[in-house]
Amino acid sequence: MHVFLNGQIVLEEQAVVSVFDRSFLYGDGLFEAIPYFGGRPFRWAEHLTRFARGAQLLKIRCPFSDEAMRKAADELIARNKMPDALLRLTLSRGVSAMRGYSPKGADSPTLVMNLHPLTRPDPEKLLKWKVIIASQRLPAGEPLAQFKNANKLPQILARAEADDAGANEALLQNSDSHVVEGTTSNLFWIENETVNTPPLVAGILPGVTRSAVLDICRALKIKSQERNLTLAGLKQADGVFLSMSSMGIVAVESLDGVKLPEPAVIHGIHRAYCDLL
Amino acid sequence: MHVFLNGQIVLEEQAVVSVFDRSFLYGDGLFEAIPYFGGRPFRWAEHLTRFARGAQLLKIRCPFSDEAMRKAADELIARNKMPDALLRLTLSRGVSAMRGYSPKGADSPTLVMNLHPLTRPDPEKLLKWKVIIASQRLPAGEPLAQFKNANKLPQILARAEADDAGANEALLQNSDSHVVEGTTSNLFWIENETVNTPPLVAGILPGVTRSAVLDICRALKIKSQERNLTLAGLKQADGVFLSMSSMGIVAVESLDGVKLPEPAVIHGIHRAYCDLL
Repeated sequence: MHVFLNGQIVLEEQAVVSVFDRSFLYGDGLFEAIPYFGGRPFRWAEHLTRFARGAQLLKIRCPFSDEAMRKAADELIARNKMPDALLRLTLSRGVSAMRGYSPKGADSPTLVMNLHPLTRPDPEKLLKWKVIIASQRLPAGEPLAQFKNANKLPQILARAEADDAGANEALLQNSDSHVVEGTTSNLFWIENETVNTPPLVAGILPGVTRSAVLDICRALKIKSQERNLTLAGLKQADGVFLSMSSMGIVAVESLDGVKLPEPAVIHGIHRAYCDLL
Repeated sequence: MHVFLNGQIVLEEQAVVSVFDRSFLYGDGLFEAIPYFGGRPFRWAEHLTRFARGAQLLKIRCPFSDEAMRKAADELIARNKMPDALLRLTLSRGVSAMRGYSPKGADSPTLVMNLHPLTRPDPEKLLKWKVIIASQRLPAGEPLAQFKNANKLPQILARAEADDAGANEALLQNSDSHVVEGTTSNLFWIENETVNTPPLVAGILPGVTRSAVLDICRALKIKSQERNLTLAGLKQADGVFLSMSSMGIVAVESLDGVKLPEPAVIHGIHRAYCDLL
């Protein structure tokens, strides 16, 4: 496998960073995961916009332009012969001259791009996941939630709880006791034929696939709205599904072991999403 | 400079980890910073106990015993000829076989030890810092706050605010609007001749120097207590100081630009702390 590291395409074994890299020491970095199908990225611009917003919030100057990154990403897809792949783009603040949290003088960021195998969603086959509610909470209104930051311990702990329960994903509540998102997915639920999803101010990731789902709802004339919901409310829903760039649309088959209804609208949104790819 | 990396002492330039290391990707790791004075660590056992508690919470199996780490740390001090140094001990979950947050199968952790220059505190000279209140908040009651985890973006953002304001440190409030700690320091304030510090359940680091300060208060028969305080309350305090392993006791000279009183008790605690080293 070839990896892009600071302007060079190198073998995986040579893709290394200093133990003084700030993303290794403090999680001082951010990332994106962009799906490629048939050698072309899906919603490249939306991913890069979120990436740039994160870099701006953290004040990390990305050393490559969007065009240079796109060129390098395409080359990586070609070199690895992986037309269907999930591209991970990682930007770290790099090495500091000084010890400590201050970003002052840490002005040689590290940019990494690498690929993971990816399967194109099948319009005839909706994935169905067992989901649990994690005990770990997320802070409501957290500005760092606006992009994929490299501080993922809450998600890792929640995901470990899912593993222990034999589940595919864990949903997290925020500090206001609203169910807000999965560890790697945005949350939707159906109620009175309306598709609902938590608002961004709840402290969730503005997912690219989340946004595609809202586009699909408009196109298919399905009512949709953003609102907060407690766990008790979620358990009463007419159906629950998740969205993520790597998998697309996934139905929640059971929540904490209780089977959920699976209305036709979830299948319709899944098929419409597959049509976009 | 020599660095300990997974059982080997190597040159700084050779101290590298894979770009697939989970602490680089997600901040999936933890650390400690242990002061050495005259070639001997200060409160080694307390630091290692906190480190072990963190490793247990994250379920990362440290590949070295405390004794092996102590031996390696002492050797690092000798090899680098730095009898006064801050030892950083970093444990990452290492590389995963699978993409994603699940820690399943990531069972080859990475252990790094390195040194930073350190100056022994001077009993005759109390450091005085300008401090600001950061806009970033910390989640109250966060279990991850119980140890030095590798998710430090909130502290980095707060510290960047301090840099911008020309301050030495930033204090953070938690989601309950209590002032809880600095980015790298525990918080104390004096009120009615009593030394106060926030309780651990507020979501703060159980600092080793914080604990030493409470010991000193008992020894010097200074009343002390743990309690919550709002920013308005802190501004009314008879004096404010910080504690941290790297610097010891530091008086807060000004808070958001407003000069604070500097009662004799802070000097007394500082001198007593220097006596312990």
